[in-house]
Amino acid sequence: MRFFSDNAAAAHPNVLEAIAAVNRVDTAYDGDEWSQRLDGAFSDLFGSQVRAFWVTTGTAANCLALAALCPPYRAILCHRDAHIEVDEAGAPGFFTGGAKLVLLEGPGAKITPDAVSDACEAIRDDVHQVQPAALSITNATEYGLVYRAAEVAALGDVAKRRGLAFHMDGARIANAVASTGESLADATWRAGVDAMSFGFVKNGGLNAECLILFRPELADEIAVRRKRAGHLLSKGRYLAAQILAMLENGLWLDNARAANAAAQQLAKAAPQRLIYPVEANEVFLKVSGDEEEQLRRQGFDFYEWGPGQIRFVTSWDQRAEDVEKLASAIASL
Amino acid sequence: MRFFSDNAAAAHPNVLEAIAAVNRVDTAYDGDEWSQRLDGAFSDLFGSQVRAFWVTTGTAANCLALAALCPPYRAILCHRDAHIEVDEAGAPGFFTGGAKLVLLEGPGAKITPDAVSDACEAIRDDVHQVQPAALSITNATEYGLVYRAAEVAALGDVAKRRGLAFHMDGARIANAVASTGESLADATWRAGVDAMSFGFVKNGGLNAECLILFRPELADEIAVRRKRAGHLLSKGRYLAAQILAMLENGLWLDNARAANAAAQQLAKAAPQRLIYPVEANEVFLKVSGDEEEQLRRQGFDFYEWGPGQIRFVTSWDQRAEDVEKLASAIASL
Amino acid sequence: MRFFSDNAAAAHPNVLEAIAAVNRVDTAYDGDEWSQRLDGAFSDLFGSQVRAFWVTTGTAANCLALAALCPPYRAILCHRDAHIEVDEAGAPGFFTGGAKLVLLEGPGAKITPDAVSDACEAIRDDVHQVQPAALSITNATEYGLVYRAAEVAALGDVAKRRGLAFHMDGARIANAVASTGESLADATWRAGVDAMSFGFVKNGGLNAECLILFRPELADEIAVRRKRAGHLLSKGRYLAAQILAMLENGLWLDNARAANAAAQQLAKAAPQRLIYPVEANEVFLKVSGDEEEQLRRQGFDFYEWGPGQIRFVTSWDQRAEDVEKLASAIASL
Amino acid sequence: MRFFSDNAAAAHPNVLEAIAAVNRVDTAYDGDEWSQRLDGAFSDLFGSQVRAFWVTTGTAANCLALAALCPPYRAILCHRDAHIEVDEAGAPGFFTGGAKLVLLEGPGAKITPDAVSDACEAIRDDVHQVQPAALSITNATEYGLVYRAAEVAALGDVAKRRGLAFHMDGARIANAVASTGESLADATWRAGVDAMSFGFVKNGGLNAECLILFRPELADEIAVRRKRAGHLLSKGRYLAAQILAMLENGLWLDNARAANAAAQQLAKAAPQRLIYPVEANEVFLKVSGDEEEQLRRQGFDFYEWGPGQIRFVTSWDQRAEDVEKLASAIASL
Repeated sequence: MRFFSDNAAAAHPNVLEAIAAVNRVDTAYDGDEWSQRLDGAFSDLFGSQVRAFWVTTGTAANCLALAALCPPYRAILCHRDAHIEVDEAGAPGFFTGGAKLVLLEGPGAKITPDAVSDACEAIRDDVHQVQPAALSITNATEYGLVYRAAEVAALGDVAKRRGLAFHMDGARIANAVASTGESLADATWRAGVDAMSFGFVKNGGLNAECLILFRPELADEIAVRRKRAGHLLSKGRYLAAQILAMLENGLWLDNARAANAAAQQLAKAAPQRLIYPVEANEVFLKVSGDEEEQLRRQGFDFYEWGPGQIRFVTSWDQRAEDVEKLASAIASL
Repeated sequence: MRFFSDNAAAAHPNVLEAIAAVNRVDTAYDGDEWSQRLDGAFSDLFGSQVRAFWVTTGTAANCLALAALCPPYRAILCHRDAHIEVDEAGAPGFFTGGAKLVLLEGPGAKITPDAVSDACEAIRDDVHQVQPAALSITNATEYGLVYRAAEVAALGDVAKRRGLAFHMDGARIANAVASTGESLADATWRAGVDAMSFGFVKNGGLNAECLILFRPELADEIAVRRKRAGHLLSKGRYLAAQILAMLENGLWLDNARAANAAAQQLAKAAPQRLIYPVEANEVFLKVSGDEEEQLRRQGFDFYEWGPGQIRFVTSWDQRAEDVEKLASAIASL
Repeated sequence: MRFFSDNAAAAHPNVLEAIAAVNRVDTAYDGDEWSQRLDGAFSDLFGSQVRAFWVTTGTAANCLALAALCPPYRAILCHRDAHIEVDEAGAPGFFTGGAKLVLLEGPGAKITPDAVSDACEAIRDDVHQVQPAALSITNATEYGLVYRAAEVAALGDVAKRRGLAFHMDGARIANAVASTGESLADATWRAGVDAMSFGFVKNGGLNAECLILFRPELADEIAVRRKRAGHLLSKGRYLAAQILAMLENGLWLDNARAANAAAQQLAKAAPQRLIYPVEANEVFLKVSGDEEEQLRRQGFDFYEWGPGQIRFVTSWDQRAEDVEKLASAIASL
Repeated sequence: MRFFSDNAAAAHPNVLEAIAAVNRVDTAYDGDEWSQRLDGAFSDLFGSQVRAFWVTTGTAANCLALAALCPPYRAILCHRDAHIEVDEAGAPGFFTGGAKLVLLEGPGAKITPDAVSDACEAIRDDVHQVQPAALSITNATEYGLVYRAAEVAALGDVAKRRGLAFHMDGARIANAVASTGESLADATWRAGVDAMSFGFVKNGGLNAECLILFRPELADEIAVRRKRAGHLLSKGRYLAAQILAMLENGLWLDNARAANAAAQQLAKAAPQRLIYPVEANEVFLKVSGDEEEQLRRQGFDFYEWGPGQIRFVTSWDQRAEDVEKLASAIASL
């Protein structure tokens, strides 16, 4: 029973069907009708004119955006535990041409406006120190915490005051929105976000992610950077179709709700063991080595997150009986 | 009737089936069994120990390899019409960190050993001039010509003598091998090739290409570079499965043979109009503006390659009646 | 008797004196009064508000400017024989983060407006091909030809129409201006030049060159890029003082006139042997192997420029008797 | 009375004389006899075959070395307060092509072997996390602390065990060696250092620093990288001569001893106020705002290092009476 990562989940049947449905001769790259439909689909979703670019990984979506938002000689503020710092093999350095990540602290990988201000203040304003150009947050965070729209807006304010572009890693934006019930617009562009990755693969997609630009004037640069980085697929329709299937009838939200609900079920089984409040689809628990062993013996697969800590990630397709079994097992520890 | 690009073709049904067949929870990234099977499958195919890395574009496959073969401060020799020079948006510069492309001449985008030697001789051996580190050829070339194994070996010899690594852009390697009937091993590693892209997408794949390393000691670096460039997909099994399906029972060769045969049919319709001999799946014809117009009016879709020149590319799934119609139309011009 | 390179010449005594005169404790980097005086001195010289940055090499001056004028994913048009292409070890690729040089043809390393237009026309306007962002010319050229102000202006016009920034490698701008007698302003910013390197080292300086920005809004970026590239010296006053000494009383022009006059003397000795008209301080001659040998035996030191071609470069400090001897020797061949 | 920075000091008269002494026509770049003598001079100094490259800044010396020691996709371990992290405008990212700095803690900007081990242990050994390739230390540190040879050797050991190249920022190596009285060889290559910057400018030089390679096999790469970064000056003899003058009769050590002695005099004036032990030529003191003001009113120039902290840096040419006056002033606070 897999609670290891939402990266490991299957693709939703609708996604596979959508791929099959576009399997015919068509225009190459992103000239096909499905790729051409993305801007409109996301503009509707966000209630604002946006530009949308399919790519195949969150790393590509994040780092293409960061390259457009931060010149090589400046810095991106992010959390010490941010995916771009910890789990992308230095991709921000590669895509930006050497920009620096300045690491902020904060529980649960959440950044506060004060942390941003303090970091900016600590940088002498001269040519010797790398000046900040962008702020990047992850929503939901790497520890499954969620920024509410007002929190994003407060960060957007400080970014604006400090002259920072504002990027969101939305690998789990669906789980975040499903969690707060707030409007997607409020949690993103209305809060000052300039560009974001919109994650689908962890949420039922197969291999299509999306880069969303709320500043359409960056679109030409992004289009070139995507090609230059080898991320302009020649048969793009198979990515576009996946994304359109995920957007159709709110499948992206339904899937996220399912994953979140499973996480809640686990959280309720042992509230006293929770390391962080469970707000999306990740559950971090304190356990002893014996307890961990006990869970593994019962056939549960999960990540050891450090001494005495384990992580469960729930997916859109987690089987109800597996979740129940795990919840019981946790409760019985 | 589309003769525009093999990039526009559909994916082969076996490829779609293979994707569906791996649609289940599994290990993320390339830890799944299908990804793990690639090294063995290609080692069998090549008759030598190789390392194989799925990626989603030929640009990624080519430029990851070039980055491992050429340091930022040296140069790659390639043809003036090479895809890496003309159609990858400067990706070699991006992936290598600024290495230079030195452009060679030669009819039909083919490079001769003499052209390589001459280019090397023209570079003063000092720190002021960029010294060459690699040679890159495309087989079949951008004009549909094919290097025979002996020709590749002659280039491999000169590369070795000059201390150059040897890269092959194999976006249409299947068409090349199908054309010559020679052994894949003879045309690649036995001829001195160090790394190559092995194209599937133009040949019936959906979105999986492969980077093949004949020098396994580069594998660790390539693995990191792939991740860092955003090309390590989290659900890699859907790429690996496509490739395995293409290799199974020689589907890759069958598809290439079909495409080549269609090109031959067109070539025979108007041998006097051919700009290059037709050796793979591309046909370049001399036509007048009127003749071009005439073909378009009959519903044929193709590329205008410059004044008085048009290009047809045939695909694995080209319908027999379409090919026949086009052949007749060309013959009747 | 050295006619090998103006790079090999001595520094002018005034330059050494200026260095000695600032040898005291002072503010570090470019905070000292001499560095602070540069903007004003060059603004006076050019008759326009400019920003001036000392560096120690022409390569640094050229490539810092190019990095500010051309993003990593675009291209710089320059002559096939341009110093930035041929003799800077790929520095443009390093400083820009991988931008491409597109090479133009033209006798004597001179570029015409038509060559620029043709190069632009040859680039398909899509994301697959690298789009041009800048034009770079060298004045005087690598073959000692000089662009007159009207020629620069014509290039400036085409650059503007094509949306290209305009850079001038002015390693020998002094020789060019001394040659035409035209106004420095007319030959640079009034002709549309955005940024240039202003050479001093070949013309009597010790190790100070200058980067001039006619678009002051780029100054902050250049300041950071200079530091980041290790070109912000901690004791900048020794560079600034050199430059101020070269500007004082037109020493830079006097030196250039002296070098040019020596070249004219050589040119007149054998007009029939000239490969290019002699307009600055370089003389290219056709000679046989025997003749070359004859000159060397008489103690002349020069560069063999290819089969049957030799190059003499005259310097500000070339001794009159050496020039005379060489002129006679050439005449007697 | 300036105690602001050793960067602001004058150049030693011998250095100026040496510059004047080479002021004649000679071979360009580093082909002159003085540049050619550097390898031998430093090999003698270190008692080992080394390769020496003049450059004009410590940033260039450090970052050229780091680029040769760390590929773009790996990381350099250094102290959080290291000059390469804090004061080089992101130059390591530029020169390496995007390598990451991993920041270690430790009082006085000193790194311990345990800190290195812990940092390595904290990095998961997979393609998602950036793997370390090099360790960089500064001796004397940015806070004027000195690594003794045994301490460097202990770091060299852990570097070796961890597969890390070992770099030393020796901007103040002279002060360090003058402080410990230990052998230069013991404190560098015998302790496992692979490459270092050897500082002269803070210690009486004018604008020449040196990059020393203890692994001569890297020399060709460094030579190219130096040119490519615009750091190969065309009249290199003026840099080489400076360095040779500094080495002659141990001037570099004498100057460092003078600066260190001045610092000791200040340290003794108020031992209770010292924030760090004074081991080289930097003195950090705790003072109140009033006390700081009092010192400034008496004409002393120094750096405010944060709330309640001030920094004095003594130079080779600090006048005895100024030092005395400052010592008294501090003592009387």
